[in-house]
Amino acid sequence: MAKPGLKVIPLGGLSEIGKNMMVLEYEEDIIIIDAGLMFPEEGMFGVDLVIPDISYLLDKQARIKGIVVTHGHEDHIGALPYLLPQLNAPVYSTKLTRGLISVKLKERKALSGASLKVVPFGEKITLGKFRVEFFPVCHSIPDAAGLIITTPIGTIVHSGDFKLDYTPVSGQPTALSRLALLGGQGVLLLLADSTYAELPGYTPSEKVVGETLDHIMAEAPGRVIVTTFSSLISRVQQVIDAAAKHQRRVFIVGRSMSDTAHMALELGYLKAPDGVLARMDDLRGMPRNKVAFVTTGSQGEPTSALVRMANRDHRQVHILRGDTVVISATPIPGNEGLVNKTVDSLFKQGAQVFYDKVAPVHVHGHASQEELKLLLTLVNPKFFMPIHGEYRHLSLHAKLAQSVGIPKDNIFVLEDGDILELGPQAGKIAGKVASSNVYVDGLSVGDIGSVVLRDRKMLSKDGIVMVIIAVNRQTGKIVGRPDIISRGFVDTRESKDMLDESCDLVARVLDHGGAHSADWGFINTKVRDTLNKFYYQQTRRHPMVLPFMVKV
Amino acid sequence: MAKPGLKVIPLGGLSEIGKNMMVLEYEEDIIIIDAGLMFPEEGMFGVDLVIPDISYLLDKQARIKGIVVTHGHEDHIGALPYLLPQLNAPVYSTKLTRGLISVKLKERKALSGASLKVVPFGEKITLGKFRVEFFPVCHSIPDAAGLIITTPIGTIVHSGDFKLDYTPVSGQPTALSRLALLGGQGVLLLLADSTYAELPGYTPSEKVVGETLDHIMAEAPGRVIVTTFSSLISRVQQVIDAAAKHQRRVFIVGRSMSDTAHMALELGYLKAPDGVLARMDDLRGMPRNKVAFVTTGSQGEPTSALVRMANRDHRQVHILRGDTVVISATPIPGNEGLVNKTVDSLFKQGAQVFYDKVAPVHVHGHASQEELKLLLTLVNPKFFMPIHGEYRHLSLHAKLAQSVGIPKDNIFVLEDGDILELGPQAGKIAGKVASSNVYVDGLSVGDIGSVVLRDRKMLSKDGIVMVIIAVNRQTGKIVGRPDIISRGFVDTRESKDMLDESCDLVARVLDHGGAHSADWGFINTKVRDTLNKFYYQQTRRHPMVLPFMVKV
Repeated sequence: MAKPGLKVIPLGGLSEIGKNMMVLEYEEDIIIIDAGLMFPEEGMFGVDLVIPDISYLLDKQARIKGIVVTHGHEDHIGALPYLLPQLNAPVYSTKLTRGLISVKLKERKALSGASLKVVPFGEKITLGKFRVEFFPVCHSIPDAAGLIITTPIGTIVHSGDFKLDYTPVSGQPTALSRLALLGGQGVLLLLADSTYAELPGYTPSEKVVGETLDHIMAEAPGRVIVTTFSSLISRVQQVIDAAAKHQRRVFIVGRSMSDTAHMALELGYLKAPDGVLARMDDLRGMPRNKVAFVTTGSQGEPTSALVRMANRDHRQVHILRGDTVVISATPIPGNEGLVNKTVDSLFKQGAQVFYDKVAPVHVHGHASQEELKLLLTLVNPKFFMPIHGEYRHLSLHAKLAQSVGIPKDNIFVLEDGDILELGPQAGKIAGKVASSNVYVDGLSVGDIGSVVLRDRKMLSKDGIVMVIIAVNRQTGKIVGRPDIISRGFVDTRESKDMLDESCDLVARVLDHGGAHSADWGFINTKVRDTLNKFYYQQTRRHPMVLPFMVKV
Repeated sequence: MAKPGLKVIPLGGLSEIGKNMMVLEYEEDIIIIDAGLMFPEEGMFGVDLVIPDISYLLDKQARIKGIVVTHGHEDHIGALPYLLPQLNAPVYSTKLTRGLISVKLKERKALSGASLKVVPFGEKITLGKFRVEFFPVCHSIPDAAGLIITTPIGTIVHSGDFKLDYTPVSGQPTALSRLALLGGQGVLLLLADSTYAELPGYTPSEKVVGETLDHIMAEAPGRVIVTTFSSLISRVQQVIDAAAKHQRRVFIVGRSMSDTAHMALELGYLKAPDGVLARMDDLRGMPRNKVAFVTTGSQGEPTSALVRMANRDHRQVHILRGDTVVISATPIPGNEGLVNKTVDSLFKQGAQVFYDKVAPVHVHGHASQEELKLLLTLVNPKFFMPIHGEYRHLSLHAKLAQSVGIPKDNIFVLEDGDILELGPQAGKIAGKVASSNVYVDGLSVGDIGSVVLRDRKMLSKDGIVMVIIAVNRQTGKIVGRPDIISRGFVDTRESKDMLDESCDLVARVLDHGGAHSADWGFINTKVRDTLNKFYYQQTRRHPMVLPFMVKV
């Protein structure tokens, strides 16, 4: 076995492995692929965002030759405002992705000093010992890329987030012939998107949604309101096309949808025939069957335009009986409840609602099993590493790779932080770097640790009871009767007697022990034990009990 | 229009309408259908269970002729231990349902005094002006029933939770001919299960799962571990049958699976050939391909046997490389994350895992659209009221009813608490009764109200900061410097300076105002405002700020 020269390390992504960041290392040179964020999972109380742990990279800044970004979704660019100041490396991407990155950096006041470089498809850049070429892939955002990375020991193909779509609405189909050519020449390692490795068959083309939208725009008796992700620009394009065909004017509602649509119009990623796009001022007096809205809210976000409309809380648009609403998206895991509530409200307002369970109003942006097998077959890599998915997706993708003939020993299923050391003839998982998740809560990055989260969890379940014990500063003796205050534990009025009784109990415990402030550790434990037991007996609840000594 | 004599009121079920309880009223007589519970939704911090609000019934006990229970699932029987003492009425059900109800009541020490009556299918009982007959339906538990309720103004059919299954594994197929006969004679009102009104086509027969299990038991190289709901007795039967066929012995693991299986064996709802069921003592030394386990944990419950096995935390069984795990269930909404985590762990332990997304290992227990249309067509009711589903399911079910010819005006989509007043010729929604959800948290029923939940929510997001201000009891003057304690807000060590600074700020505010305990209301507000602003500036967080005065 040759001395392994290449290291591949997935980082970040919560349970999705290598989703937010991948590190490639060859001798002294490092490149980073993507720098995204995740939204918190259940139980991460109060956390706003989760970003990759880059502690492994912090003493290696000088060796980082560049950050290569595959596409402009949050989970691939969203951590840049937090990490770029520390990584201090140039960022390479396609044009639209660069536009979205600069918007992100501007929002967080991290744009100045950033070096953002556009790389056209097919052009090669040199980053130390690595040469990188972007190739077009289809995904639910335009200008998405896969990567061909040449290293001294062989070629690496990174699929990015991708699907095959022979009839994409915007952009180019995934560059299959380029990949087939490469496969013929010999590819050392394929890293490929596993998000939908559970799904048999092929992911349908974006065009399928166009047919449904066309039908709805033609048949709907009243206004049509379509909601989708603002970054899904091809979907917005299809709404505009279908509306225009049926003489409906299109109103773009909501700040983020508006901002993205205008940016996409300017950069040429979105096209609208003259006179189709309308301003809210034009709405008054228009026949309802000549109106279409495009808006955000497909995830049931409480402050989104669609949810405000559904709750009769929007400044400009309310749902009217006879409206048709199209939710052109699937709920992101964890958002199902919010989306369902929104659909229920829309039905209650008298709208007809089309959503993913009842009509083909959405196709997703990742490859299904047959596409994954096709990619594996064309690229024909010596080694394979499934990425972008939870462990089960990676396991299933690994089995698909075996089924098309890649030997089991040449397939590496890693977890975040695992180091794959790869030589021209063999590879192995060799060690692990720090890869815990870093929580962003408000302004702070990383100060929320397990203690704070454990406290929030405990507080969320049964609330808190504070016991305030005054002690004479000179004598160390208890002064008066303790005070008890609770929040989130019981209804303080209904349970006044029980709380009073618990206060008596503490008073007796203190009295009995002839308590002295010097014994605070002992008193603290004793009070907590007594109250934990009493409250559990009385209520079967476990509030956080917090005795506190005030010296007076 | 004749004077309406019948009232129909759905109650409970969180967002699912009429799921946990329905009230039927005719003149002075009341019957109740089901008395179930729901598990808390997101945001119901620390709530254990949710039961229907029966305040409407509390002054009408004497008029309640009986509680009729359709089947033995938690969401139809689980509230009985809490409500039966207040409703004080006899409970009618089929045999297995009665068995499950008495287990529930015994657990909660509410069995004594309860009158539980078994009603065989086809027999009629008289409850005041109502006559009730149970008819068999297929559902994911044996002995499930629908109801034929005769009233002075006409016949009501209540579907219970049902699907059609011409080849059920246990029990009888849904009684279609009986319903067709009734339909010919004229049915006034149909109440029907809408849970899967979103799904086109037919729900597959339970037998489909049998074929998959048979295949897995035959092919698996090692042990087979099947997890499902303990009440899904027909599924357990199929595991036993498939295991027996392939000379595997079956080990039942986990208390609730064991208890239910033994009860079902005794009552004859479950059958095992001699020598198939084994005890844990028999396990040692058995060839792995002769072993099958049945266990709970299909929802990823952290304390379930399967999850303990997956985490190498079970006393008796650990997952071994080469084991095959079958998750024969779908995640209940809200449990997806836990189930996914469990599947990931199983894969990491080297198991092969079959779950609903990758193999036909589960069929659900509710009718899909074609079955719903068939029921509507056979029963051919004058009026229709969709029940058992969230509002969108009811709306879609209403549209299905229209599509088979029921006039729109004869279809009533209610929300919980709505009163449907029905006469022989017409009906209308007339008023609303109290129908909020009642929260069970520990021992208390109903004391958790919006204030406690709001506090828990706030605590869960950004924690709490207590400010303790000592005041001289005689002079009313502030004594010393305030104390600040926080939990769940920031890392108290890392943020010590910031917290100290906030304490100084409070001291200055109090000093500046020459604070006196008589102005406590003012001080309280001033301290809170000051700290809210300061903490938000420093951290962008909103902890609960709680000033407290200690008189010393």
